[in-house]
Amino acid sequence: MSPRAVVLLSGGLDSATVLAIARHEGFETYALTFRYGQRHQIEVDAARKVAASLGAARHVVLDIDLRAFGGSALTSDLAVPKDRHPSSMSAEIPPTYVPARNTIFLSFALGWAEVLESNDIFIGVNALDYSGYPDCRPEYVAAFERMAQLATRRGVEGQQTLVVHAPLIQLSKADIIRRGMGLGVNFGLTWSCYDPPSDGKPCGHCDACFLRTRGFLEAGVADPGFY
Amino acid sequence: MSPRAVVLLSGGLDSATVLAIARHEGFETYALTFRYGQRHQIEVDAARKVAASLGAARHVVLDIDLRAFGGSALTSDLAVPKDRHPSSMSAEIPPTYVPARNTIFLSFALGWAEVLESNDIFIGVNALDYSGYPDCRPEYVAAFERMAQLATRRGVEGQQTLVVHAPLIQLSKADIIRRGMGLGVNFGLTWSCYDPPSDGKPCGHCDACFLRTRGFLEAGVADPGFY
Repeated sequence: MSPRAVVLLSGGLDSATVLAIARHEGFETYALTFRYGQRHQIEVDAARKVAASLGAARHVVLDIDLRAFGGSALTSDLAVPKDRHPSSMSAEIPPTYVPARNTIFLSFALGWAEVLESNDIFIGVNALDYSGYPDCRPEYVAAFERMAQLATRRGVEGQQTLVVHAPLIQLSKADIIRRGMGLGVNFGLTWSCYDPPSDGKPCGHCDACFLRTRGFLEAGVADPGFY
Repeated sequence: MSPRAVVLLSGGLDSATVLAIARHEGFETYALTFRYGQRHQIEVDAARKVAASLGAARHVVLDIDLRAFGGSALTSDLAVPKDRHPSSMSAEIPPTYVPARNTIFLSFALGWAEVLESNDIFIGVNALDYSGYPDCRPEYVAAFERMAQLATRRGVEGQQTLVVHAPLIQLSKADIIRRGMGLGVNFGLTWSCYDPPSDGKPCGHCDACFLRTRGFLEAGVADPGFY
């Protein structure tokens, strides 16, 4: 029997690549997506298609209402910044940062992993072509992993170690795209834009659109999505 | 202006005492309760009454569906154990353990604290008269605190330290009851039973009922609740 892994899946190209990597490494994959009050549901639909196309054993979509707290352009009426200069993306934390989002997502993944008797969680965080979010850095992932050891049965009963895999953390967006294509990811199913206009197409001006467009350019391949 | 604190509030007597302690220490309190798929809503109603009676500045009740994962007697059809011998409570992890529950709760508290610009989270975990849960131990709380430093803006921008307060962690249930009464907590508003029968009264036989009853006996005071 293949070992099981819980894979956080947003519907974007990073987490789609991570799901393909987990499968490639021999895991039976359990994909976990959140409707957390983000501006649109397109990415949840994208996550469903990606999970099905990459053979996830199960895909759970959980509702959690981060709008109850606000504090982010993705979960409130704050404006999503457009056409930011690339240099400012790593220099400041933008309003699209959602407080503690990755910690909340990883915590749910930890709970599901324990129920599945899985020792492996995969997350598509990236410390290079990212938006300056604190919870995308290697030292954060390592600290979560240490906490997770103590948080569950394994911490008391001396069972196997829990590993938080972040296989993209040191890759450029172009590297991620190449890696995903090599593993058969259909990026045409994925979605990146933070703030699509009502026509259902990407805005082309937010950080996520910028990073995606530049990534495909640098990888030298055409984006099979809406871009 | 008083500093703000996020206080996890279940509606039981431990977290009610913690809310009173946070207020006593001079914090403006923001109480956070979860409907996570537990067997009954009585404790959420209790939390509302407790928050109001102890002057919380705001009380948020969040819905998160931990039934999607199962794995616990509190969130599935597994039976809640009754009439366990006290010695077995610290020797084994019972089926009422909810995988990663405190990690999930603390993660949401972390997000809210960041939005509120609060550096203080309070949780009523207890390592003495507890049910053998891994996420109630001091080493777990310390590891969460270390992770939390890195998870949010403060981890990048070098702001003040986040503190996870667990003021009950080394107290007996009787000590907690005495402390709460000294701070004016009305324990008649609180609820402890894991598995109330349909008459709306506590079952009197689960771990939570046992620990509460023994605590009031040892404290030498009458339980003003249904017990």
